[in-house]
Amino acid sequence: MTDFTRRQSFAVAAGAAAAVSLPNVRPAHAAAPPAGKQAAGWYRYKIGSIEMTVATDGVARFKMAEDHVINIKKDVVNAALAEVFMEKDMMTTPYNPVAINSGGKLAVIDTGTGEANYKNSNGVGGQFITNLAAAGIDRAAVDTVIISHFHGDHINGLLMADGSLTYPNAEIVVPAVEQKYWMDDGEMSRATNARVQTNFKNVRRVFNAEVMKRMRAYEWGKEVIPGVTAQGTPGHTIGHTSYVISSGQDAVYLQSDVTHVPFLFVRHPDWHAFYDQDGAMAEATRRKVYDMLAADKMRVQGFHYPFPSLAHVEKVGTGYREIPVLWNPTI
Amino acid sequence: MTDFTRRQSFAVAAGAAAAVSLPNVRPAHAAAPPAGKQAAGWYRYKIGSIEMTVATDGVARFKMAEDHVINIKKDVVNAALAEVFMEKDMMTTPYNPVAINSGGKLAVIDTGTGEANYKNSNGVGGQFITNLAAAGIDRAAVDTVIISHFHGDHINGLLMADGSLTYPNAEIVVPAVEQKYWMDDGEMSRATNARVQTNFKNVRRVFNAEVMKRMRAYEWGKEVIPGVTAQGTPGHTIGHTSYVISSGQDAVYLQSDVTHVPFLFVRHPDWHAFYDQDGAMAEATRRKVYDMLAADKMRVQGFHYPFPSLAHVEKVGTGYREIPVLWNPTI
Repeated sequence: MTDFTRRQSFAVAAGAAAAVSLPNVRPAHAAAPPAGKQAAGWYRYKIGSIEMTVATDGVARFKMAEDHVINIKKDVVNAALAEVFMEKDMMTTPYNPVAINSGGKLAVIDTGTGEANYKNSNGVGGQFITNLAAAGIDRAAVDTVIISHFHGDHINGLLMADGSLTYPNAEIVVPAVEQKYWMDDGEMSRATNARVQTNFKNVRRVFNAEVMKRMRAYEWGKEVIPGVTAQGTPGHTIGHTSYVISSGQDAVYLQSDVTHVPFLFVRHPDWHAFYDQDGAMAEATRRKVYDMLAADKMRVQGFHYPFPSLAHVEKVGTGYREIPVLWNPTI
Repeated sequence: MTDFTRRQSFAVAAGAAAAVSLPNVRPAHAAAPPAGKQAAGWYRYKIGSIEMTVATDGVARFKMAEDHVINIKKDVVNAALAEVFMEKDMMTTPYNPVAINSGGKLAVIDTGTGEANYKNSNGVGGQFITNLAAAGIDRAAVDTVIISHFHGDHINGLLMADGSLTYPNAEIVVPAVEQKYWMDDGEMSRATNARVQTNFKNVRRVFNAEVMKRMRAYEWGKEVIPGVTAQGTPGHTIGHTSYVISSGQDAVYLQSDVTHVPFLFVRHPDWHAFYDQDGAMAEATRRKVYDMLAADKMRVQGFHYPFPSLAHVEKVGTGYREIPVLWNPTI
């Protein structure tokens, strides 16, 4: 057996580079050129008779702010990143909206960062509608856009880069509690946090006259479309909403942003990302949801989970850990 | 906040089913029909200038034999399956060969279960060449087929259902140690294990005259194609081989079957799957490889890892645990 240390492996590789062991005695073929493109990021599964399609919007990779986790020192966050083999000081955040075909309705839940971001990011983000199309779903066929909360990565995709509607034939349904908060000029004037102020402005930019004409509010505890029931999961935002998607005996919990990236915030539910508008409330919600997911062995679909963003949850110590569901090559 | 127990969620869902909260006041649209098909299972990444394409062959799902893990009782194996939210008594095994474009060569490493199995399994297995094609790689353009070991799920894909060559323009390169063992009639006559006998027969079936004409042996410790160095990792079979794939400062360890499905055998390296021809040797190899992977933080590409089969490895207690690499939406 050869040695297994990496250094020795590389020494072997370097030594052998000059003398490839296998002369190609077959007629020489020009190797095909590199293909150079990634697979369209979509994945499909069924919940009873409901067809779920996860289509990634892509990722963002950015330098972590000093207060990315407001109640935890950056070197502790860096140690947690190292544990999952991720680069120090950098955040890589996936964005994964879903489409839901419930027979009667073709809905999307959240919209990603939008076509403008596709252009700004050179295609690294803003991929949702192109991946949806690759999955056979035309944005013009979507009849309901369900919004979980009003952060930019969830609502910006309502508009194309030219400001036109991404889903021209869809009703846009939003949580009543979220709508009341972000559309209230009094709340806006009282917001002291600069990030929250910026979000108030972005909501007013995205929710233009055409969007507002198509907007209706939905209540927690009720079905939004058949098989998709809204649950209030406040904290991340005041009106943040998750969904129980069920059909027959089968169900999945679509958690929206109950946790941000699982490799930090599922493992450490007590960590408060700066995105969480009310950190203490977000943590209480997180523990309730994750205790339920672990106890009921219920699968979770998470917007910021790595694509295809579908996992089970186990309880580990004072936190949790996600166990991705195996990719099913058929549906 | 609504209640979070699953029962209560479902009660809400059932109660709301009759009265959808949002009358669709927009013009009615016929919802698009369910798409009904899964994404082509392929994923691409670069190792320096080498382009790696994982293309899944699919999965097999079957009732676990009493001696599936020969040195561990079935109820202990079932408990381990429950820990990863998998069904009792059932094994779900993914098969994930790769294609490697190293510039000079377009190779595949292992061939999956083959077109005959695609037909027999109704498309659940035997998908490798269709997923390769979806990834832009024509089987006729492959110039080198690298075989890691002579088990059916690695060699059967050499032949199409009609017995013709799947890769008509490729040299077929095999580990010298593996070739010597399985092609030796003396070894065949001395094999007492029925599964090993069956494999001797399958090797002789697949390695027909056309395959043998194209076959060359390679040695451990040498490059098989530029950037791909063979490492002897015996135990699973006598001549079982893994590969260090490296280019520039980047590398990945292609482990073949050093472990079978990671959710059992990475966590429990002391468990001997019945597939391991020499359990003790396979375990020693496994520990050596995984200690190296963990110490060097080296990524591993695993044939029986869930698609896309690329992970880091951490040491946990007396075993290890895989941490899947985030899906990169670009390459």
